[in-house]
Amino acid sequence: MKKAVILLSGGLDSATCLAMAKQNSFAPYALSFRYGQRHEFELNSARAVAQAHGVKDHVISNIDLRAFGGSALTDEIDVPKNRDESAISNEIPVTYVPARNTIFLSFSLAYAEVIGANDIFIGVNALDYSGYPDCRPEYIKSFQNMANLATKSGVEGNGSLTIHTPLINLTKAMIIQMGIELGVDYSLTHSCYDPMDNGTSCGHCDACQLRLKGFEEAGLTDPLIYSS
Amino acid sequence: MKKAVILLSGGLDSATCLAMAKQNSFAPYALSFRYGQRHEFELNSARAVAQAHGVKDHVISNIDLRAFGGSALTDEIDVPKNRDESAISNEIPVTYVPARNTIFLSFSLAYAEVIGANDIFIGVNALDYSGYPDCRPEYIKSFQNMANLATKSGVEGNGSLTIHTPLINLTKAMIIQMGIELGVDYSLTHSCYDPMDNGTSCGHCDACQLRLKGFEEAGLTDPLIYSS
Repeated sequence: MKKAVILLSGGLDSATCLAMAKQNSFAPYALSFRYGQRHEFELNSARAVAQAHGVKDHVISNIDLRAFGGSALTDEIDVPKNRDESAISNEIPVTYVPARNTIFLSFSLAYAEVIGANDIFIGVNALDYSGYPDCRPEYIKSFQNMANLATKSGVEGNGSLTIHTPLINLTKAMIIQMGIELGVDYSLTHSCYDPMDNGTSCGHCDACQLRLKGFEEAGLTDPLIYSS
Repeated sequence: MKKAVILLSGGLDSATCLAMAKQNSFAPYALSFRYGQRHEFELNSARAVAQAHGVKDHVISNIDLRAFGGSALTDEIDVPKNRDESAISNEIPVTYVPARNTIFLSFSLAYAEVIGANDIFIGVNALDYSGYPDCRPEYIKSFQNMANLATKSGVEGNGSLTIHTPLINLTKAMIIQMGIELGVDYSLTHSCYDPMDNGTSCGHCDACQLRLKGFEEAGLTDPLIYSS
Protein backbone atom coordinates (compact mmCIF):
# COMPACT_ATOMS: atom_id res chain seq x y z
CA MET A 1 0.00 0.00 0.00
CA LYS A 2 1.21 3.49 -0.84
CA LYS A 3 1.69 5.78 2.12
CA ALA A 4 -0.17 9.09 2.26
CA VAL A 5 -0.06 11.98 4.71
CA ILE A 6 -3.54 13.21 5.70
CA LEU A 7 -3.92 16.64 7.26
CA LEU A 8 -6.40 15.95 10.05
CA SER A 9 -7.97 18.87 11.90
CA GLY A 10 -10.66 16.85 13.64
CA GLY A 11 -13.34 18.57 11.59
CA LEU A 12 -15.94 17.09 9.30
CA ASP A 13 -14.00 17.72 6.08
CA SER A 14 -10.67 16.21 7.11
CA ALA A 15 -12.37 13.15 8.64
CA THR A 16 -14.09 12.55 5.29
CA CYS A 17 -10.83 13.14 3.46
CA LEU A 18 -9.14 10.47 5.61
CA ALA A 19 -11.91 7.98 4.81
CA MET A 20 -11.53 8.75 1.09
CA ALA A 21 -7.75 8.22 1.21
CA LYS A 22 -8.34 4.80 2.79
CA GLN A 23 -11.03 4.03 0.19
CA ASN A 24 -8.38 4.76 -2.46
CA SER A 25 -6.06 2.18 -0.88
CA PHE A 26 -3.59 4.53 0.76
CA ALA A 27 -1.96 3.68 4.08
CA PRO A 28 -2.86 6.80 6.07
CA TYR A 29 -0.41 8.78 8.24
CA ALA A 30 -2.30 11.57 10.02
CA LEU A 31 -0.84 14.97 10.85
CA SER A 32 -2.44 17.50 13.21
CA PHE A 33 -1.22 20.74 14.75
CA ARG A 34 -1.32 22.40 18.11
CA TYR A 35 -0.99 25.86 16.60
CA GLY A 36 -2.30 28.12 19.31
CA GLN A 37 -5.99 27.55 18.61
CA ARG A 38 -8.05 28.78 21.53
CA HIS A 39 -9.32 25.36 22.53
CA GLU A 40 -8.13 21.75 22.56
CA PHE A 41 -11.41 20.13 21.35
CA GLU A 42 -10.18 20.03 17.76
CA LEU A 43 -7.20 17.87 18.74
CA ASN A 44 -9.31 15.53 20.86
CA SER A 45 -11.53 15.03 17.82
CA ALA A 46 -8.50 14.51 15.58
CA ARG A 47 -7.23 11.79 17.93
CA ALA A 48 -10.64 10.08 18.04
CA VAL A 49 -11.04 10.19 14.24
CA ALA A 50 -7.48 8.91 13.68
CA GLN A 51 -8.10 6.01 16.05
CA ALA A 52 -11.48 5.16 14.54
CA HIS A 53 -9.93 4.89 11.08
CA GLY A 54 -6.87 2.91 12.18
CA VAL A 55 -4.19 5.28 10.89
CA LYS A 56 -0.61 3.94 10.72
CA ASP A 57 0.65 6.85 12.79
CA HIS A 58 -0.65 10.19 14.03
CA VAL A 59 1.81 13.05 14.58
CA ILE A 60 0.64 16.13 16.47
CA SER A 61 3.12 18.89 15.75
CA ASN A 62 3.49 21.91 18.01
CA ILE A 63 3.81 25.14 16.09
CA ASP A 64 3.34 28.67 17.22
CA LEU A 65 1.09 30.78 15.03
CA ARG A 66 0.16 33.05 17.92
CA ALA A 67 3.60 34.69 17.60
CA PHE A 68 2.22 36.48 14.53
CA GLY A 69 -1.37 37.11 15.62
CA GLY A 70 -3.91 38.36 13.14
CA SER A 71 -6.74 35.82 13.48
CA ALA A 72 -9.84 35.25 15.57
CA LEU A 73 -8.85 31.60 15.88
CA THR A 74 -5.60 32.35 17.72
CA ASP A 75 -6.14 35.83 19.17
CA GLU A 76 -8.64 37.52 21.44
CA ILE A 77 -10.69 38.65 18.46
CA ASP A 78 -14.43 37.87 18.55
CA VAL A 79 -15.59 35.02 16.32
CA PRO A 80 -18.39 36.38 14.11
CA LYS A 81 -21.85 34.83 14.56
CA ASN A 82 -24.97 34.46 12.40
CA ARG A 83 -23.39 35.86 9.24
CA ASP A 84 -25.45 35.48 6.11
CA GLU A 85 -24.50 32.96 3.48
CA SER A 86 -23.04 35.34 0.91
CA ALA A 87 -20.78 36.92 3.55
CA ILE A 88 -19.54 33.49 4.62
CA SER A 89 -18.70 32.42 1.11
CA ASN A 90 -17.32 35.63 -0.36
CA GLU A 91 -15.33 37.53 2.26
CA ILE A 92 -11.99 36.75 3.88
CA PRO A 93 -13.20 36.38 7.48
CA VAL A 94 -11.38 37.29 10.72
CA THR A 95 -11.16 33.55 11.38
CA TYR A 96 -8.68 33.32 8.49
CA VAL A 97 -5.26 32.42 9.90
CA PRO A 98 -2.53 34.00 7.76
CA ALA A 99 -0.74 31.42 5.59
CA ARG A 100 -2.20 28.55 7.62
CA ASN A 101 -2.68 26.06 4.82
CA THR A 102 0.74 26.93 3.42
CA ILE A 103 2.30 26.21 6.80
CA PHE A 104 0.28 23.00 7.28
CA LEU A 105 1.12 21.75 3.78
CA SER A 106 4.80 22.59 4.34
CA PHE A 107 4.89 20.41 7.44
CA SER A 108 3.04 17.65 5.61
CA LEU A 109 5.75 17.87 2.95
CA ALA A 110 8.44 17.33 5.59
CA TYR A 111 6.49 14.39 7.03
CA ALA A 112 5.94 12.89 3.57
CA GLU A 113 9.63 13.20 2.76
CA VAL A 114 10.67 11.47 5.99
CA ILE A 115 8.26 8.52 5.65
CA GLY A 116 8.74 8.25 1.88
CA ALA A 117 5.21 9.22 0.86
CA ASN A 118 4.43 10.88 -2.47
CA ASP A 119 0.81 11.72 -1.61
CA ILE A 120 -0.73 14.33 0.67
CA PHE A 121 -4.47 14.72 1.33
CA ILE A 122 -5.99 18.01 2.47
CA GLY A 123 -9.72 18.55 2.93
CA VAL A 124 -9.94 22.06 1.53
CA ASN A 125 -13.19 23.16 0.01
CA ALA A 126 -13.49 25.91 -2.57
CA LEU A 127 -17.28 26.27 -2.38
CA ASP A 128 -17.92 26.85 1.30
CA TYR A 129 -14.68 28.72 1.91
CA SER A 130 -14.16 30.64 -1.28
CA GLY A 131 -13.20 33.62 0.89
CA TYR A 132 -10.00 31.84 1.99
CA PRO A 133 -7.25 32.41 -0.59
CA ASP A 134 -5.51 29.17 0.37
CA CYS A 135 -8.53 26.95 -0.38
CA ARG A 136 -8.57 27.72 -4.12
CA PRO A 137 -7.60 25.11 -6.72
CA GLU A 138 -5.00 27.40 -8.32
CA TYR A 139 -3.30 27.80 -4.95
CA ILE A 140 -3.14 24.03 -4.38
CA LYS A 141 -1.75 23.43 -7.86
CA SER A 142 0.90 26.08 -7.28
CA PHE A 143 1.86 24.52 -3.93
CA GLN A 144 2.24 21.15 -5.63
CA ASN A 145 4.54 22.66 -8.28
CA MET A 146 6.68 24.23 -5.57
CA ALA A 147 6.74 21.02 -3.49
CA ASN A 148 8.11 19.08 -6.44
CA LEU A 149 11.10 21.43 -6.53
CA ALA A 150 11.56 21.57 -2.75
CA THR A 151 12.44 18.03 -1.84
CA LYS A 152 15.01 15.31 -2.36
CA SER A 153 12.59 13.20 -4.36
CA GLY A 154 11.88 16.13 -6.66
CA VAL A 155 15.61 16.49 -7.31
CA GLU A 156 16.43 12.81 -7.49
CA GLY A 157 13.38 11.99 -9.56
CA ASN A 158 11.99 9.34 -7.20
CA GLY A 159 8.44 10.11 -8.20
CA SER A 160 6.53 13.32 -7.97
CA LEU A 161 4.41 14.52 -5.13
CA THR A 162 0.65 14.92 -5.47
CA ILE A 163 -1.56 17.10 -3.28
CA HIS A 164 -5.00 15.45 -3.25
CA THR A 165 -8.04 17.65 -2.59
CA PRO A 166 -10.96 15.25 -3.05
CA LEU A 167 -13.46 17.66 -1.43
CA ILE A 168 -12.47 20.81 -3.26
CA ASN A 169 -15.55 21.02 -5.49
CA LEU A 170 -18.10 19.24 -3.29
CA THR A 171 -20.89 20.87 -1.35
CA LYS A 172 -21.01 20.22 2.38
CA ALA A 173 -24.07 17.99 1.83
CA MET A 174 -22.19 15.90 -0.73
CA ILE A 175 -19.20 15.60 1.62
CA ILE A 176 -21.45 14.36 4.42
CA GLN A 177 -23.29 11.88 2.19
CA MET A 178 -19.99 10.49 0.92
CA GLY A 179 -18.60 10.28 4.46
CA ILE A 180 -21.67 8.41 5.72
CA GLU A 181 -21.26 5.89 2.89
CA LEU A 182 -17.61 5.42 3.90
CA GLY A 183 -18.51 4.88 7.56
CA VAL A 184 -17.35 8.22 9.02
CA ASP A 185 -18.73 8.74 12.51
CA TYR A 186 -19.44 12.46 12.52
CA SER A 187 -20.18 12.41 16.23
CA LEU A 188 -16.39 12.21 16.69
CA THR A 189 -15.72 15.35 14.66
CA HIS A 190 -15.65 18.96 15.80
CA SER A 191 -16.26 22.01 13.62
CA CYS A 192 -17.18 24.93 15.93
CA TYR A 193 -14.85 27.96 16.05
CA ASP A 194 -16.16 29.06 19.42
CA PRO A 195 -17.31 26.12 21.56
CA MET A 196 -18.61 26.32 25.14
CA ASP A 197 -16.25 25.29 27.95
CA ASN A 198 -17.75 21.80 27.92
CA GLY A 199 -17.05 21.44 24.18
CA THR A 200 -20.64 21.97 23.03
CA SER A 201 -20.79 23.68 19.63
CA CYS A 202 -22.15 27.24 19.45
CA GLY A 203 -24.32 26.70 16.37
CA HIS A 204 -23.83 30.26 15.15
CA CYS A 205 -20.25 30.68 13.90
CA ASP A 206 -19.51 30.21 10.18
CA ALA A 207 -18.27 26.66 10.70
CA CYS A 208 -21.38 25.59 12.66
CA GLN A 209 -23.72 27.24 10.17
CA LEU A 210 -22.08 25.55 7.18
CA ARG A 211 -22.11 22.22 8.97
CA LEU A 212 -25.77 22.43 10.03
CA LYS A 213 -26.84 23.53 6.56
CA GLY A 214 -24.89 20.60 5.08
CA PHE A 215 -26.64 18.04 7.25
CA GLU A 216 -29.99 19.65 6.50
CA GLU A 217 -29.41 19.57 2.75
CA ALA A 218 -28.23 15.97 3.01
CA GLY A 219 -31.51 15.13 4.77
CA LEU A 220 -29.60 13.98 7.85
CA THR A 221 -29.34 14.97 11.49
CA ASP A 222 -26.03 16.23 12.84
CA PRO A 223 -25.08 13.94 15.77
CA LEU A 224 -23.36 16.83 17.60
CA ILE A 225 -24.99 18.65 20.50
CA TYR A 226 -25.43 22.40 20.06
CA SER A 227 -25.76 24.91 22.87
CA SER A 228 -28.70 26.69 21.23
CA MET B 1 10.23 52.76 4.61
CA LYS B 2 8.90 49.49 3.25
CA LYS B 3 8.77 46.64 5.74
CA ALA B 4 10.59 43.39 4.97
CA VAL B 5 10.77 40.07 6.80
CA ILE B 6 14.33 38.73 7.06
CA LEU B 7 14.87 35.05 7.86
CA LEU B 8 17.70 35.22 10.37
CA SER B 9 19.47 32.02 11.39
CA GLY B 10 22.38 33.71 13.12
CA GLY B 11 24.74 32.45 10.43
CA LEU B 12 27.04 34.38 8.15
CA ASP B 13 24.69 34.37 5.15
CA SER B 14 21.54 35.59 6.89
CA ALA B 15 23.46 38.32 8.76
CA THR B 16 24.75 39.60 5.40
CA CYS B 17 21.27 39.34 3.94
CA LEU B 18 19.90 41.50 6.77
CA ALA B 19 22.57 44.14 6.13
CA MET B 20 21.70 44.12 2.41
CA ALA B 21 17.98 44.56 3.13
CA LYS B 22 18.82 47.60 5.26
CA GLN B 23 21.15 48.92 2.55
CA ASN B 24 18.17 48.68 0.18
CA SER B 25 16.12 50.88 2.52
CA PHE B 26 13.84 48.21 3.96
CA ALA B 27 12.67 48.37 7.58
CA PRO B 28 13.78 44.90 8.78
CA TYR B 29 11.63 42.51 10.81
CA ALA B 30 13.70 39.46 11.75
CA LEU B 31 12.31 35.95 12.08
CA SER B 32 14.16 33.01 13.66
CA PHE B 33 13.11 29.51 14.67
CA ARG B 34 13.64 27.24 17.61
CA TYR B 35 13.08 24.13 15.48
CA GLY B 36 14.72 21.41 17.49
CA GLN B 37 18.28 22.16 16.45
CA ARG B 38 20.70 20.40 18.77
CA HIS B 39 22.11 23.58 20.26
CA GLU B 40 20.98 27.10 21.15
CA PHE B 41 24.08 28.96 19.87
CA GLU B 42 22.39 29.75 16.57
CA LEU B 43 19.60 31.63 18.33
CA ASN B 44 21.99 33.54 20.57
CA SER B 45 23.80 34.67 17.42
CA ALA B 46 20.52 35.57 15.75
CA ARG B 47 19.60 37.75 18.73
CA ALA B 48 23.02 39.46 18.74
CA VAL B 49 22.92 40.11 14.98
CA ALA B 50 19.33 41.42 15.14
CA GLN B 51 20.28 43.80 17.93
CA ALA B 52 23.47 44.99 16.21
CA HIS B 53 21.48 45.91 13.10
CA GLY B 54 18.60 47.59 14.95
CA VAL B 55 15.76 45.48 13.57
CA LYS B 56 12.21 46.79 14.14
CA ASP B 57 11.19 43.50 15.75
CA HIS B 58 12.60 39.99 16.12
CA VAL B 59 10.19 37.06 16.42
CA ILE B 60 11.56 33.68 17.51
CA SER B 61 8.96 31.10 16.57
CA ASN B 62 8.86 27.67 18.22
CA ILE B 63 8.26 24.88 15.76
CA ASP B 64 8.82 21.19 16.11
CA LEU B 65 10.74 19.61 13.26
CA ARG B 66 12.02 16.81 15.50
CA ALA B 67 8.56 15.24 15.32
CA PHE B 68 9.49 14.11 11.81
CA GLY B 69 13.20 13.37 12.25
CA GLY B 70 15.33 12.65 9.23
CA SER B 71 18.22 15.10 9.71
CA ALA B 72 21.59 15.26 11.46
CA LEU B 73 20.67 18.78 12.61
CA THR B 74 17.69 17.67 14.67
CA ASP B 75 18.37 13.96 15.31
CA GLU B 76 21.12 11.89 16.85
CA ILE B 77 22.73 11.37 13.46
CA ASP B 78 26.47 12.17 13.24
CA VAL B 79 27.37 15.41 11.47
CA PRO B 80 29.86 14.56 8.68
CA LYS B 81 33.35 16.03 8.98
CA ASN B 82 36.17 16.86 6.57
CA ARG B 83 34.17 16.08 3.44
CA ASP B 84 35.79 17.13 0.20
CA GLU B 85 34.53 20.10 -1.74
CA SER B 86 32.72 18.24 -4.52
CA ALA B 87 30.81 16.14 -1.97
CA ILE B 88 29.76 19.28 -0.09
CA SER B 89 28.48 21.00 -3.18
CA ASN B 90 26.87 18.13 -5.08
CA GLU B 91 25.23 15.71 -2.64
CA ILE B 92 22.15 16.12 -0.48
CA PRO B 93 23.83 15.79 2.94
CA VAL B 94 22.45 14.25 6.15
CA THR B 95 22.36 17.79 7.54
CA TYR B 96 19.54 18.56 5.10
CA VAL B 97 16.34 19.09 7.10
CA PRO B 98 13.32 17.93 5.07
CA ALA B 99 11.30 20.86 3.72
CA ARG B 100 13.05 23.27 6.07
CA ASN B 101 13.20 26.29 3.77
CA THR B 102 9.61 25.66 2.70
CA ILE B 103 8.52 25.68 6.33
CA PHE B 104 10.62 28.74 7.17
CA LEU B 105 9.35 30.65 4.13
CA SER B 106 5.76 29.67 4.99
CA PHE B 107 6.11 31.20 8.44
CA SER B 108 7.75 34.30 6.94
CA LEU B 109 4.71 34.56 4.68
CA ALA B 110 2.40 34.54 7.72
CA TYR B 111 4.56 37.16 9.44
CA ALA B 112 4.67 39.31 6.30
CA GLU B 113 0.89 39.14 5.94
CA VAL B 114 0.30 40.18 9.55
CA ILE B 115 2.70 43.17 9.50
CA GLY B 116 1.72 44.19 5.95
CA ALA B 117 5.08 43.48 4.30
CA ASN B 118 5.40 42.53 0.63
CA ASP B 119 9.08 41.57 0.82
CA ILE B 120 10.87 38.58 2.33
CA PHE B 121 14.65 38.12 2.40
CA ILE B 122 16.27 34.70 2.65
CA GLY B 123 20.04 34.14 2.50
CA VAL B 124 20.02 30.96 0.42
CA ASN B 125 23.03 30.22 -1.72
CA ALA B 126 22.94 28.04 -4.80
CA LEU B 127 26.72 27.71 -5.17
CA ASP B 128 27.84 26.42 -1.77
CA TYR B 129 24.67 24.43 -1.15
CA SER B 130 23.73 23.17 -4.56
CA GLY B 131 23.01 19.80 -2.91
CA TYR B 132 20.01 21.29 -1.07
CA PRO B 133 16.95 21.22 -3.34
CA ASP B 134 15.38 24.16 -1.53
CA CYS B 135 18.30 26.53 -2.22
CA ARG B 136 17.83 26.50 -6.00
CA PRO B 137 16.57 29.59 -7.89
CA GLU B 138 13.76 27.62 -9.57
CA TYR B 139 12.50 26.53 -6.14
CA ILE B 140 12.48 30.11 -4.82
CA LYS B 141 10.65 31.37 -7.90
CA SER B 142 8.07 28.64 -7.51
CA PHE B 143 7.56 29.46 -3.82
CA GLN B 144 7.00 33.11 -4.75
CA ASN B 145 4.36 32.12 -7.32
CA MET B 146 2.60 30.01 -4.72
CA ALA B 147 2.85 32.74 -2.07
CA ASN B 148 1.11 35.21 -4.36
CA LEU B 149 -1.88 32.89 -4.52
CA ALA B 150 -1.85 32.00 -0.82
CA THR B 151 -2.55 35.29 0.88
CA LYS B 152 -5.13 38.02 1.27
CA SER B 153 -2.98 40.53 -0.56
CA GLY B 154 -2.63 38.13 -3.48
CA VAL B 155 -6.42 37.85 -3.69
CA GLU B 156 -7.21 41.48 -3.02
CA GLY B 157 -4.45 42.76 -5.28
CA ASN B 158 -2.71 44.88 -2.63
CA GLY B 159 0.67 44.35 -4.23
CA SER B 160 2.55 41.21 -4.91
CA LEU B 161 5.01 39.48 -2.66
CA THR B 162 8.69 39.21 -3.56
CA ILE B 163 11.14 36.67 -2.17
CA HIS B 164 14.57 38.32 -2.26
CA THR B 165 17.64 36.09 -2.46
CA PRO B 166 20.51 38.57 -2.81
CA LEU B 167 23.16 35.92 -2.06
CA ILE B 168 21.90 33.19 -4.33
CA ASN B 169 24.66 33.44 -6.94
CA LEU B 170 27.50 34.80 -4.79
CA THR B 171 30.53 32.85 -3.60
CA LYS B 172 31.12 32.75 0.16
CA ALA B 173 34.11 35.09 -0.34
CA MET B 174 31.93 37.62 -2.17
CA ILE B 175 29.29 37.41 0.55
CA ILE B 176 31.90 38.10 3.24
CA GLN B 177 33.44 41.00 1.33
CA MET B 178 30.03 42.56 0.81
CA GLY B 179 29.14 42.05 4.47
CA ILE B 180 32.36 43.68 5.67
CA GLU B 181 31.61 46.71 3.46
CA LEU B 182 28.14 46.93 5.01
CA GLY B 183 29.51 46.73 8.56
CA VAL B 184 28.51 43.16 9.47
CA ASP B 185 30.33 41.98 12.58
CA TYR B 186 30.99 38.33 11.76
CA SER B 187 32.21 37.65 15.29
CA LEU B 188 28.51 37.72 16.27
CA THR B 189 27.54 35.02 13.77
CA HIS B 190 27.57 31.25 14.15
CA SER B 191 27.85 28.70 11.35
CA CYS B 192 29.03 25.39 12.88
CA TYR B 193 26.69 22.37 12.70
CA ASP B 194 28.44 20.65 15.60
CA PRO B 195 29.88 23.12 18.11
CA MET B 196 31.62 22.23 21.40
CA ASP B 197 29.66 22.67 24.62
CA ASN B 198 31.18 26.12 25.08
CA GLY B 199 30.02 27.19 21.60
CA THR B 200 33.42 26.94 19.93
CA SER B 201 33.10 25.94 16.25
CA CYS B 202 34.40 22.50 15.20
CA GLY B 203 36.18 23.66 12.04
CA HIS B 204 35.44 20.39 10.20
CA CYS B 205 31.73 20.19 9.37
CA ASP B 206 30.52 21.38 5.94
CA ALA B 207 29.41 24.75 7.33
CA CYS B 208 32.77 25.44 9.03
CA GLN B 209 34.73 24.35 5.97
CA LEU B 210 32.73 26.58 3.62
CA ARG B 211 33.05 29.50 6.01
CA LEU B 212 36.80 29.12 6.52
CA LYS B 213 37.38 28.76 2.79
CA GLY B 214 35.30 31.89 2.19
CA PHE B 215 37.36 33.99 4.59
CA GLU B 216 40.57 32.62 3.10
CA GLU B 217 39.49 33.43 -0.45
CA ALA B 218 38.40 36.90 0.65
CA GLY B 219 41.89 37.43 2.11
CA LEU B 220 40.40 37.93 5.58
CA THR B 221 40.63 36.21 8.96
CA ASP B 222 37.51 34.66 10.47
CA PRO B 223 36.99 36.31 13.87
CA LEU B 224 35.46 33.09 15.31
CA ILE B 225 37.43 30.75 17.58
CA TYR B 226 37.77 27.16 16.34
CA SER B 227 38.42 24.15 18.53
CA SER B 228 41.12 22.79 16.22
